[in-house]
Amino acid sequence: MQAADAERASIARISLADVVRRSARRDPEKIAVIQGDRRVTFAALDAASERVGEALRDHELADRRIATMCVNSIEHLAAIQAIHKSGNVWVPVNVQLDAASIEHVLSHAEASAVFIDAALFEVPPLRTLVERLGLLTVVIGAQHHATAGTLHFDALASRPPAQPLATARGDDDLALIMYTSGTTGKQKGVMHSHRSVHGALLSCAQSFEATERDVVVSVLPLFHCAQHAISTGALMVGATLWLANGFDPAAILTAIGRERITWLSCLPMMFDALMKHPQRPQTDFSSLRLCMYGLAPMPKNLLADIRRDMCPDVRLGTGQTEMYPPTMVYRASDHPDKDGNCWGVSVAGVETAVMDDDGRLLGPGQVGEIVHRGPNVFLGYLKDPEATAAARRFGWHHTGDIGMLDADGHMLFLDRKKDMIKTGGENVSSVKLEAVLLAHPAVGAAAVVGLPHPHWGEAVAAFVVLRRNDGSCGEDELLAFCKERLGRFEVPKSIRFVDGMPMTPTGKIQKFQLRTAHLALFESGER
Amino acid sequence: MQAADAERASIARISLADVVRRSARRDPEKIAVIQGDRRVTFAALDAASERVGEALRDHELADRRIATMCVNSIEHLAAIQAIHKSGNVWVPVNVQLDAASIEHVLSHAEASAVFIDAALFEVPPLRTLVERLGLLTVVIGAQHHATAGTLHFDALASRPPAQPLATARGDDDLALIMYTSGTTGKQKGVMHSHRSVHGALLSCAQSFEATERDVVVSVLPLFHCAQHAISTGALMVGATLWLANGFDPAAILTAIGRERITWLSCLPMMFDALMKHPQRPQTDFSSLRLCMYGLAPMPKNLLADIRRDMCPDVRLGTGQTEMYPPTMVYRASDHPDKDGNCWGVSVAGVETAVMDDDGRLLGPGQVGEIVHRGPNVFLGYLKDPEATAAARRFGWHHTGDIGMLDADGHMLFLDRKKDMIKTGGENVSSVKLEAVLLAHPAVGAAAVVGLPHPHWGEAVAAFVVLRRNDGSCGEDELLAFCKERLGRFEVPKSIRFVDGMPMTPTGKIQKFQLRTAHLALFESGER
Repeated sequence: MQAADAERASIARISLADVVRRSARRDPEKIAVIQGDRRVTFAALDAASERVGEALRDHELADRRIATMCVNSIEHLAAIQAIHKSGNVWVPVNVQLDAASIEHVLSHAEASAVFIDAALFEVPPLRTLVERLGLLTVVIGAQHHATAGTLHFDALASRPPAQPLATARGDDDLALIMYTSGTTGKQKGVMHSHRSVHGALLSCAQSFEATERDVVVSVLPLFHCAQHAISTGALMVGATLWLANGFDPAAILTAIGRERITWLSCLPMMFDALMKHPQRPQTDFSSLRLCMYGLAPMPKNLLADIRRDMCPDVRLGTGQTEMYPPTMVYRASDHPDKDGNCWGVSVAGVETAVMDDDGRLLGPGQVGEIVHRGPNVFLGYLKDPEATAAARRFGWHHTGDIGMLDADGHMLFLDRKKDMIKTGGENVSSVKLEAVLLAHPAVGAAAVVGLPHPHWGEAVAAFVVLRRNDGSCGEDELLAFCKERLGRFEVPKSIRFVDGMPMTPTGKIQKFQLRTAHLALFESGER
Repeated sequence: MQAADAERASIARISLADVVRRSARRDPEKIAVIQGDRRVTFAALDAASERVGEALRDHELADRRIATMCVNSIEHLAAIQAIHKSGNVWVPVNVQLDAASIEHVLSHAEASAVFIDAALFEVPPLRTLVERLGLLTVVIGAQHHATAGTLHFDALASRPPAQPLATARGDDDLALIMYTSGTTGKQKGVMHSHRSVHGALLSCAQSFEATERDVVVSVLPLFHCAQHAISTGALMVGATLWLANGFDPAAILTAIGRERITWLSCLPMMFDALMKHPQRPQTDFSSLRLCMYGLAPMPKNLLADIRRDMCPDVRLGTGQTEMYPPTMVYRASDHPDKDGNCWGVSVAGVETAVMDDDGRLLGPGQVGEIVHRGPNVFLGYLKDPEATAAARRFGWHHTGDIGMLDADGHMLFLDRKKDMIKTGGENVSSVKLEAVLLAHPAVGAAAVVGLPHPHWGEAVAAFVVLRRNDGSCGEDELLAFCKERLGRFEVPKSIRFVDGMPMTPTGKIQKFQLRTAHLALFESGER
């Protein structure tokens, strides 16, 4: 039976190394990725990643951590597959970070090699960093001329086939270390197994009814868990990706008509830009079956506009690096009455609850931390057992998000735990206040934080970007607007107008930056 | 880290015990099952199964094998959940088997308890069997009056809540032992873990784009792997089941209009009966999004009729108890040119190939055994290590099916390995011959087997059920029809007309019965 059990394990084994290869076996000539004028089939993407994987193996890289410092490209996708096929661990690097943060990631993860875009390799601090860390370097991009000590992606991808790769890692082996984008400013290395991510990919395909007929827009960075799950989940079912590096509304609108895009996944502000674009009224949206958004609430009027002019089915998908997305889905089209902070219900296979600080599960209407159970939970934070243990108290994964179940069993997101404001003994949800401010027609963006106050402990401070900076709306008007809609203790003590918000590379407002910059606002206690 | 790892295991844990409970958490008042005039919500189904699970626990049943001998019913679904919630292993019994075969299953699986329908408990040999084996017996059905030594399902389900159940089994623990329906006459106990089945349920939901909006017809028996996967996969995503015990075309047609059925899953002969039913032209099929069939090929004209009159999307799903379904899906609507033996491509997460007897993978056009890899593979045959090892040679699961990939990468099913006929040194596919015979307008059913022949080794013998037994079509006409369409060595040596075919309870023709009954047909060597 021992031998038979080992045989079973190899038959049942799941590995991210198989995602593109298995789709290529099903339909080799199907287009896997469209990027600009380039189109690659599943067979070609699979072959390129196999050759690059063989090259990594030939450089004696196995069971090592290999980083990618890349924007979205076909080569980036092939590099990720090559890393997994050769039995290594993928360390995606957010290339919008500063060099010091990137150094932290590469050093902390103990990366042995890096795939890097030629344009980034030309940036002196990044090149110096990569060279100083002594990483085996594979440069992506046709402009690059071979440099001593570096390899060129295209040369590796076009090598003749060598000795086939041995069985890749899989199941409960470490597959990736993804660093959280850090609304708190600190980067932590989130470890995932092949099983935890592979299950999430299938769950993503299931939750959004992805099939091989889909053509999926991928414009958010592949190094972010949400875009990685959507893109790789789409490749797993044999769908075609329309891949772009960054958000170009004209290009997306053109692609929707030309490539018959079926699934558009964007941030709310991107949907806003698409709706306002002069090309939009002439665009044929008849192929679109799903508009998906994430990372920020969608204003109700924008939601209504999208449903009327682009696609009736609009959904919010949420998750976090630690609980690989998707974990919850809000079908806005089925429940248009819910507010923008509604996160809906958990996906099949994931269980969600609200918990108090003592580990008790709370009922509808009670405020607590959003916790999950499910096979997509992370293995732990790299080299941080305390933070890992803190995330796993009471047999549930702790998200750090504060929420409440409504009477329909839908989750209402109230705040990040650390962004909840405690003022005069009352809890105030910054997200609730932001939703009220965003409902005012003059407000384009809003962020609410708690700042130290000698009397109240914390005081509520709002920061607002106006749609038009023409003086037509002032603090008094917004305060009056808030007073009509909020409890007395919730009304901001101060509303400041700013030109823009400090943002993370993935589009979240960095409240800790606002907090740091305005720490002394209420020092005098005058308000 | 040890404690943290244990915490993670409990968070990531998957268990069939959670299927209904998690859907009930998402939407407790949603209707889970409709059976006749009865409608039960997810909350009610969950509560009933919890109470029955507590009763099993209170009878000191944990980590034991518990059988169900039930037709399709709400109670059967609740009993399965109760068995898993209380940490026991489910042993579904095919109630259409004879008492001796049922005794083999109960004894071989070492069942400790049984849920049994009152109507079956009234059948003397079954009652005697259950009593002789000393099983704790839970009788389902309102007619039943408490008998000494038996429990009544309704009484258990309506108990007041007791001490909550401890954590159920999950992950790689044994979840079920399902006995193969046996076209070969021998029943083997197929063991599956929670993980292998749970993954197949999610894969089923993904492959057929199941959502909570679906209303799914469940008329095939729940003790069969295909219906279990479809029904439980549907419950997992919060869909509603329309459950019936047996096939009643009028009831199904009425339900399609009244309950707005979205997904109809039937055998081809059932679709034929629905199409021919007088109620069909008045039926509103506008809610139907998917017609799915299995277990037998669909005649092309029936496929065209269904697509025209019922629903344009028709798909074949295949799998087997050992490789929990679905493993392959043929989208007939996308490829209407393929013949009825086309099985399409494997589902996401499963890999399929054709292999020769020496473990070499074969290319398109080459005939060999259909083999799979995927997380839905079984744990092994209970108490049969030889058969288990034989199914796992060369790192692939061996299906016992003979197939060939066509130029498009679609799998063509040719025969069960043991049904392939070897005549005069040539291989003949019984399925190919059956397809030719079925293409003749007079033929209603056909089965082809090889029978011992003194000269040819085996000779090809065909058995045919005519649509109309009016003498308008004879053996000569069918032989001439075959000669036009087949190679010389493939033409049957004999075509016999029979009134009906020996069938398995799940609708497969039992060729071994035909072979046994006609073993001496060519004894004289005259043909």
